[in-house]
Amino acid sequence: MQDNDTALSPVVAALTHTPLFAAVSDDALRNLAARSALRHFDRDEILFRAGDPPEYLHVLIDGTVQLSAATPGGREAVVELLRPVDAFLMAAALVSQPYLLSARTVEPCQILLIPLHRLLGELKTNPELTLTLLGSMARQYRHLVREIKNLRLRTAAQRLALYLLRLVEIDGSNQAAQLPHDKKLLADRLGMTPESFSRAISELRQHGVDVRGEEVRITDAEELRQFCRLDQVLDILEQDLQVLVPSTS
Amino acid sequence: MQDNDTALSPVVAALTHTPLFAAVSDDALRNLAARSALRHFDRDEILFRAGDPPEYLHVLIDGTVQLSAATPGGREAVVELLRPVDAFLMAAALVSQPYLLSARTVEPCQILLIPLHRLLGELKTNPELTLTLLGSMARQYRHLVREIKNLRLRTAAQRLALYLLRLVEIDGSNQAAQLPHDKKLLADRLGMTPESFSRAISELRQHGVDVRGEEVRITDAEELRQFCRLDQVLDILEQDLQVLVPSTS
Repeated sequence: MQDNDTALSPVVAALTHTPLFAAVSDDALRNLAARSALRHFDRDEILFRAGDPPEYLHVLIDGTVQLSAATPGGREAVVELLRPVDAFLMAAALVSQPYLLSARTVEPCQILLIPLHRLLGELKTNPELTLTLLGSMARQYRHLVREIKNLRLRTAAQRLALYLLRLVEIDGSNQAAQLPHDKKLLADRLGMTPESFSRAISELRQHGVDVRGEEVRITDAEELRQFCRLDQVLDILEQDLQVLVPSTS
Repeated sequence: MQDNDTALSPVVAALTHTPLFAAVSDDALRNLAARSALRHFDRDEILFRAGDPPEYLHVLIDGTVQLSAATPGGREAVVELLRPVDAFLMAAALVSQPYLLSARTVEPCQILLIPLHRLLGELKTNPELTLTLLGSMARQYRHLVREIKNLRLRTAAQRLALYLLRLVEIDGSNQAAQLPHDKKLLADRLGMTPESFSRAISELRQHGVDVRGEEVRITDAEELRQFCRLDQVLDILEQDLQVLVPSTS
């Protein structure tokens, strides 16, 4: 028993640090952990392809994963660059439907693999977990609505400006940050060619941000916010949204 | 009691025909219905604006509603045209966050308004309903992933081709259908100007579909599928996805 505990501990630790499982009891957590695995992946490994049936819920614990789409004709687009801790393409897993996007590591990653059958079984006896997943799906849905608004209403340079504003905010320094990905990958994520990405960086110098190599420096945050038409309510990224069930009915 | 039943019956009927509430017991259904209202809206009424806090879950029973986004600078984009029966922007309602899109009727509509407090209260005692909502959120999430893939990987003419293929399939005749919206609205929904919409219609004549006025006629479905690079698995629209909880854990 003690040996078993020791073997499980990295997996239990990974589950414990996943907001999704905050509502899960210790027993249920150990039950999930006993069937789950924390795996290391090298850079550039394919985790699954669009069209594959999901077998696990993947939770990114460390590293970066890209989600991408491709047409039969060969065009490809990076739709998302995931950072920890994030469960990816949970929708496909929950409804046992083929993935709509492919997943690939862009750097070495630690990923928790939770067998789908085990997770879905847990939902049967754990309404709290179901509510947590519902809140998480709602947050992810709203993330995609923002993405569509970005694609429909912002120019490439405005999308880059918004990305850089968020990057510097996340970094916490409020003035400077490092690009977390190479420019080619970032251009693809933002729906731009490398050439239009370079042009956008030049254009943004007049709008309050200077990018040199991987260094991002905000020189006029107010100008940059105006340029990308930032809405303080609608453009703010949300985390850990919850379904708030009223205390009395 | 009998009088009360009669007054409730259109609301109960509307709830009963909403897939979301299939898992709700008769008692719970009557409890929801007692606080809900089935309302008529004229054409061009604003139901809510982006930034508003949700008070109700809106369920479209009859008519068409457009969801749109706007920037402070005044650009606007139609992101979705909803058809019955569909709960709209459920994510905002469930997590009690401001709407990210505005909703407006584009023709006379019947809409069921379910007070949010009442719905969230129902979740506390009804794990089946929570699971149903989770399945519905997953379906809606996958719908947006397809939308993003469309915007990123398909040309305007390919997006129109895919739309027309689906339209004719939904109509069931497999050869012909009527455009359900005027061309200006449809162009906006597909992310095109009226001019590029007209050009796309001309272009599509060589790819197996003829649009004259509001009449759509598929002349070569295989050519049209190839033109828009239809993927039989990934592009098929899903309905009523469910979280399938295994029968034994």
